[in-house]
Amino acid sequence: MTARSANVHQARLLRLLRDLGPQSRVALGDRVELSRSKLAVEIDRLLETGLVVQDGLAASRGGRRSHNVRIAPSLRFLGVDIGATSVDVAVTNGELEILGHLAEPLDVRVGPVAVFERVLAMVAKLRDAGLADHFDGAGIGVPGPVRFPEGVPVAPPIMPGWDGFPVREALSQELGCPVLVDNDVNLMALGEQQAGVARSVRDFLCIKIGTGIGCGIVVSGEVHRGVTGSAGDIGHIQVDPAGPPCACGNTGCLEAHFGGNALARDAVALAEAGRSVELASRLEAAGRLTAEDVSAAASAGDPVALDLIRQGGSRTGQVIASLVSFFNPGLVVIGGGLTGLGHTLLASIRTQVYRQSLPLATGNLPIVLGELGPVAGVVGATRLISDHLFSPA
Amino acid sequence: MTARSANVHQARLLRLLRDLGPQSRVALGDRVELSRSKLAVEIDRLLETGLVVQDGLAASRGGRRSHNVRIAPSLRFLGVDIGATSVDVAVTNGELEILGHLAEPLDVRVGPVAVFERVLAMVAKLRDAGLADHFDGAGIGVPGPVRFPEGVPVAPPIMPGWDGFPVREALSQELGCPVLVDNDVNLMALGEQQAGVARSVRDFLCIKIGTGIGCGIVVSGEVHRGVTGSAGDIGHIQVDPAGPPCACGNTGCLEAHFGGNALARDAVALAEAGRSVELASRLEAAGRLTAEDVSAAASAGDPVALDLIRQGGSRTGQVIASLVSFFNPGLVVIGGGLTGLGHTLLASIRTQVYRQSLPLATGNLPIVLGELGPVAGVVGATRLISDHLFSPA
Repeated sequence: MTARSANVHQARLLRLLRDLGPQSRVALGDRVELSRSKLAVEIDRLLETGLVVQDGLAASRGGRRSHNVRIAPSLRFLGVDIGATSVDVAVTNGELEILGHLAEPLDVRVGPVAVFERVLAMVAKLRDAGLADHFDGAGIGVPGPVRFPEGVPVAPPIMPGWDGFPVREALSQELGCPVLVDNDVNLMALGEQQAGVARSVRDFLCIKIGTGIGCGIVVSGEVHRGVTGSAGDIGHIQVDPAGPPCACGNTGCLEAHFGGNALARDAVALAEAGRSVELASRLEAAGRLTAEDVSAAASAGDPVALDLIRQGGSRTGQVIASLVSFFNPGLVVIGGGLTGLGHTLLASIRTQVYRQSLPLATGNLPIVLGELGPVAGVVGATRLISDHLFSPA
Repeated sequence: MTARSANVHQARLLRLLRDLGPQSRVALGDRVELSRSKLAVEIDRLLETGLVVQDGLAASRGGRRSHNVRIAPSLRFLGVDIGATSVDVAVTNGELEILGHLAEPLDVRVGPVAVFERVLAMVAKLRDAGLADHFDGAGIGVPGPVRFPEGVPVAPPIMPGWDGFPVREALSQELGCPVLVDNDVNLMALGEQQAGVARSVRDFLCIKIGTGIGCGIVVSGEVHRGVTGSAGDIGHIQVDPAGPPCACGNTGCLEAHFGGNALARDAVALAEAGRSVELASRLEAAGRLTAEDVSAAASAGDPVALDLIRQGGSRTGQVIASLVSFFNPGLVVIGGGLTGLGHTLLASIRTQVYRQSLPLATGNLPIVLGELGPVAGVVGATRLISDHLFSPA
């Protein structure tokens, strides 16, 4: 069963059925502007491939009742989203509805072999649960730049051991299906575009704030990856030449100010300096502090934790303001692990962007939290591979 | 004579002939992958429109000699590039070769009526010189954001009186031909793509440093204008919250630090403070100082003027470094009036970008001066309108 020989009409029909669910032939005909006979030919060919099946009679619109068609319910896509400190694996049907989803903490620095061992074990669990007996395609996200055509991570700053690892090739062999690999932030953007807050938006930015900070860039409906796959790498934009040193070797990068690592570092310093009783007691209890502790302390009303989030949001907003002036997007989506910091974070980002960018660029610019939360990446991963499979040959 | 009814093959052939000059039918056939008979049909239709003409026999490649075809030599495009303090008008043939070019100083703040009176007088001069008896299309650049589909400037900060002026409609009536209007920086980018340093580059940034500072963004070969036409408005990116006040109402914008106005302001201050004999004597002689004075003083070796240029280049480089991290372009082109400041400017921009952006984004990134100088905008303007006319209906 393959879609790789689809013509341009068939590819369009497959994507419509993926995104809209079961449709009558008449309704499809209205959307693709094909003659009735031409449409019938294309649908018959899709039925022959097994990618599309008949699905009962549609409601009458007068005259003979039209048959519904839909993506074959047996189609299965796999989405894998490898973050810096966690991995998400999901199985979807051909309409990209999640049938099962597993999430586990996992440090990407253990290297690709150990990570994929874990991923394959999670996949086996989902298979054993009866959710899939095969995969028609898989999308994989990794937290660093990717040479997209080859599906290989390049010079990933937070992923020692991954540089040049043939993720696409290795996973394709293990899974026995076509695989595409992309940066995790690009997949989050695709996920929000497929099923979240960016549906029908053609030009938007998706900022992921987690351990690191990155940006997915969608131009005219397509992800912009840049000439070496590093587009959106905004964590290393310098926000203050006199700022703290960054892991990349420079000083004052956005990630050196904010993101999970910086937040934990600052929280420990403030706790040890006796500035926050809340953070100090958490540090004593656990022996360390994470971004989640700052979030919890802020929720409990701790002013020092709230201040950390506001400062971080303000720094992030400063960078986003520049990007808004430069790119003039129709929407800015904020997602990633640190969105647990929620509306305090969003408010300080908004304040900074609306203050610094010109009114023409911000007049109708929504800045919103993503809708899909932790599954944005896996949904984006299945969108990526299904776009690839549902393309003209 | 019109191309607006061209099909996709004819449009492709017209652009090829525009960009490559006269071609044999055989050579064209190799490029468009049409069967010989299909190609003959399409070329015959183009010959009928008068947009394309026969042009003698091509050199033999064995067998029957093939006829050359070319864009009709009678085609005329008009390019108009309105800057903050000058206007350029040029006439090209259908291959976008400049047949005549006029440049005059003109302050855009006199308003659209006075500006277009001058532009039309310049056009009349070029007509009187026998360069054109008609125009097949015209492209117009203005130094501010443009609502592109309507061809209307919007909220242009340095262009009082232009907001909402129907440039496209007014000029189209005056000139009796199709007109498109765009931001001047986008046209500079298109010009360098058509005939300058960015030929064959699909993703690049073109930074224009003149009275203001702006950026043309080319993604997958197309200009990215943003949802409200303000993409590339980098002059108001904040580089230092404690910096000088900007005309836009914020503080520390790039344009408040650098660009023609800031440079003149700083030069006057330094001359009056007795820091530079060279600048002081120029100020005394002319009663004012411009960016050209700084350039001349720098060429004469004045360390204060050189330092001004270095500082400005460094500030500009700081912004470009962020954009490079974000956009991961294949090329950065520096153009505009202040490129008279030349290699001192380029060197400080490069230093800053290569220092601040990650190696993956800068490893193979050329940062170069534009090749077309003052005609980049008018060439881009004719490229814009010819792309429009040589499009499928």
